[in-house]
Amino acid sequence: MDRPYAIGIDVGGTNTVVGIVDKRGQIIRSGSIKTARHAEVGDYLDELTDLLKLIMDDASIGKDQIKGIGVGAPNGNYFSGSIEFAPNLRWKGVIPFAKLLEERIGIPVALTNDANAAAIGEMTYGAARGMKDFIVITLGTGVGSGIVVNGQLVYGHDGFAGELGHVIMRRNNGRLCGCGRTGCLEAYSSATGVARTAREYLELKPETQTQLRSIPTEDITSKDVFDAAMSGDKMAQDIFKFTGEILGEAFADFVSFSSPEAIILFGGLAKAGDLIMKPIHESMERNLLAIFKNKVKLLFSELKESDAAVLGASALGWEVK
Amino acid sequence: MDRPYAIGIDVGGTNTVVGIVDKRGQIIRSGSIKTARHAEVGDYLDELTDLLKLIMDDASIGKDQIKGIGVGAPNGNYFSGSIEFAPNLRWKGVIPFAKLLEERIGIPVALTNDANAAAIGEMTYGAARGMKDFIVITLGTGVGSGIVVNGQLVYGHDGFAGELGHVIMRRNNGRLCGCGRTGCLEAYSSATGVARTAREYLELKPETQTQLRSIPTEDITSKDVFDAAMSGDKMAQDIFKFTGEILGEAFADFVSFSSPEAIILFGGLAKAGDLIMKPIHESMERNLLAIFKNKVKLLFSELKESDAAVLGASALGWEVK
Repeated sequence: MDRPYAIGIDVGGTNTVVGIVDKRGQIIRSGSIKTARHAEVGDYLDELTDLLKLIMDDASIGKDQIKGIGVGAPNGNYFSGSIEFAPNLRWKGVIPFAKLLEERIGIPVALTNDANAAAIGEMTYGAARGMKDFIVITLGTGVGSGIVVNGQLVYGHDGFAGELGHVIMRRNNGRLCGCGRTGCLEAYSSATGVARTAREYLELKPETQTQLRSIPTEDITSKDVFDAAMSGDKMAQDIFKFTGEILGEAFADFVSFSSPEAIILFGGLAKAGDLIMKPIHESMERNLLAIFKNKVKLLFSELKESDAAVLGASALGWEVK
Repeated sequence: MDRPYAIGIDVGGTNTVVGIVDKRGQIIRSGSIKTARHAEVGDYLDELTDLLKLIMDDASIGKDQIKGIGVGAPNGNYFSGSIEFAPNLRWKGVIPFAKLLEERIGIPVALTNDANAAAIGEMTYGAARGMKDFIVITLGTGVGSGIVVNGQLVYGHDGFAGELGHVIMRRNNGRLCGCGRTGCLEAYSSATGVARTAREYLELKPETQTQLRSIPTEDITSKDVFDAAMSGDKMAQDIFKFTGEILGEAFADFVSFSSPEAIILFGGLAKAGDLIMKPIHESMERNLLAIFKNKVKLLFSELKESDAAVLGASALGWEVK
């Protein structure tokens, strides 16, 4: 029987958003609960299951019309269906999330991390439709990635492939990264990396005039830097240039690895548009091996931002076996 | 009909070696011609075709018993079956090698680059039997790579994926690489890289005693450094340590990309054994993201060196469609 719907679940540190999605990527019904409300994952999953039943009833959609449920979650492992040691969630250790949810709802569940879900979402409904080789880079609080090779997501031997936020970009005197090492791409090119660069520039260039000095240094966010850059502030523009240049250097190495048709930017920092894309593009082309020059498309995500995470997760729902 | 044999052809800058191989990886018959003897690729292919017919006749093996011919060639592109702008071959531009050979011999031909052929060889007959995710690093005059993800070779969008010798390891003041850029892995960790390191050390450490000073500086090869290290020369041992450390740093980044079960060393420099493996292993583990530590096997190729290139190419022959 043809099952016309999939369910997507985006597990965030704050909210969990769910949606019933049709084959064209339209969200038929959606809803959300607070992720952090329950100390016990069982209580959380009970509330989540109630919500799913509610919106299915509301849309008059039965279990037998749902192909599968896809979950995007931090530190989600596709092979085990578990969330493993996620620093931003209350539940510690290894949570067999897919199994626990499937037992409650009676619909098959597949789970992966947020960035992999984004990549499947782009391939199913977004900028990567028809592509077999591409990389999605998520630029948010951290830097994540979903890599597709030959039409398949790269999970690797253990399900943890695609940690491109943690390739080393500065081997000497690199910034401390949240992972405990130094010099990672994420320490420079995430939203928090942009704010760190701003603080560094303010300290290193005390004589440069910039409207960023009107904000208490420790409170500066990437949004402040974006606003300043858009209003013509030179230092703020230089901060995006620096951020984009490091991303471009990293992208050139990624291309040497999997030679993708496109690299797609996804997430909050991608909203900076040309401010970040232009330096990325220039830096990537300057750093590419000759055989790859002028071949790799740099694109923005085509998933509507508010829906992107749920759509990405739902795309995994179509693939559930 | 079951076809019990494949043919492997290794096109090197000096010699072209061919072999008829059975399903267990036994080379039944082999032969070779000089690659550089003919200025015209057509003349070369005529001689190659004659050789193939000769050894097939000699072994009483008919065309209908050969599943396919696999070719490993510098700058070989799997998608086009062409050798494209190979700097070490006499034939310039784009050579539709697979098509030209297939027309002459009447057996289907597939072609890829040397490192990809090595990876397929390890998967079919060698250290990667039963593995679905691994990387082969070839350490010879240059540094090449063949990447396998989910049991499939990574060719990328254009057939040129897997140029891991050209990821940038030193972004400031890096060594000039043959590719025209600076700081590439290949400039440090190839056989020529080892010789360059030796020259650098000799110049930078004029007071250090080493038997390498008995060789004219410009003539030093990686073999000289190996021999000195094996006889206990401290500087020579340090040169291998330096080489292995950079490889380990690079491997840690590769693991973040595709999370392989193993990384397999192939080619001349791999003969240095523990001299290179030990520093690679220490450096890789030190540089790995926590989730990958103590998980990735470092292995040497299990293909007999003299046969490895032909076996690798023949493995592609089994996959010809």
